[in-house]
Amino acid sequence: MKIILIGASGTIGQAVARELSERHELIRVGHASGELQVDITDSGSIRRLLERTGPFDALISTAGKLHFGALEDMSEAEYAIGLQDKLMGQVNLVLIGREFANDGASFTLTSGVLSEDPIRHGSSASMVNAALDGFVRGAAVELPRGLRINSVSPTVLVESLPAYGPFFRGFKAVPAAEVALAYAKSAEGRQTGQVYKVL
Amino acid sequence: MKIILIGASGTIGQAVARELSERHELIRVGHASGELQVDITDSGSIRRLLERTGPFDALISTAGKLHFGALEDMSEAEYAIGLQDKLMGQVNLVLIGREFANDGASFTLTSGVLSEDPIRHGSSASMVNAALDGFVRGAAVELPRGLRINSVSPTVLVESLPAYGPFFRGFKAVPAAEVALAYAKSAEGRQTGQVYKVL
Repeated sequence: MKIILIGASGTIGQAVARELSERHELIRVGHASGELQVDITDSGSIRRLLERTGPFDALISTAGKLHFGALEDMSEAEYAIGLQDKLMGQVNLVLIGREFANDGASFTLTSGVLSEDPIRHGSSASMVNAALDGFVRGAAVELPRGLRINSVSPTVLVESLPAYGPFFRGFKAVPAAEVALAYAKSAEGRQTGQVYKVL
Repeated sequence: MKIILIGASGTIGQAVARELSERHELIRVGHASGELQVDITDSGSIRRLLERTGPFDALISTAGKLHFGALEDMSEAEYAIGLQDKLMGQVNLVLIGREFANDGASFTLTSGVLSEDPIRHGSSASMVNAALDGFVRGAAVELPRGLRINSVSPTVLVESLPAYGPFFRGFKAVPAAEVALAYAKSAEGRQTGQVYKVL
């Protein structure tokens, strides 16, 4: 399969590339690195990317930024970051990407455990991750031509504990290599509308 | 309790008013009707409303608009409607409302069944409703002073079947009066971070 991997330089993206690159033709896309670049908050940038890659069999996004911070310090501006970037950035990869997707192609987006298991400083993450999972369920029942869509909702990564461990006390961390399996299941399997939780 | 009811003229809002008005001091707020008016997409309008109502013990929102339409006809502009109105409109009621909330006051927002049980034309609703439930879970663990927050996630209303029935084939509809009980449970109970599903 020809697979476009957005966020290829991130911790999850690198693990997904290791999982998939031996079996598939992988196009690694980053914000500032990778073979090709994209700003997922800019629909024009997404379109230019896909005009260069051409048709694909799977698009995987491990990209998306949001604001972590104390609820008491947050107003709508801080929530807008995650809505524009991690949420609508990934949704726009689907809305624009469907024009370039081969019949039966899949989209796999990245949400996260905080949708259901909240932590302090995580209210935007809880909102945005839940929104992504909801969009996946909603879009799956309407996509044409056998197109599929799933999300991967990982808990905190072993690799991220040095930076984020204090916010995730009591969470069992998983290695990125294990999270990467869920992307393979989404892209190489046949299900749609699924939220693959990796806990 | 002094309860501010936003969306008081809607089908759910009227049922909530009937449920709560005999036991509580209710301030009915609408977009164009009610004792007071608010445009929840405008943070200035929310602030002006709450400066007029003063401190409250419960704020209930049954308001919020989003776009229903075929996925194939939707781009980011159609999703932006629900993100700005039903999602961030209600979130802003909390972010601004917390300044006016008495200790122990509650917020109750309205999401909906499509977060988990999608229908055609409902991809924005699935996204926005899931986002609201996620925000509620996330915000609940950080709100200070005993402030509480819950959402009510109703299925299709009996009263809405004439208009929306064809989109909800196979859904068991519930009367608005039954949905209204969940708002009473949220405002008059003691739980927080809950999604009260009325199915």
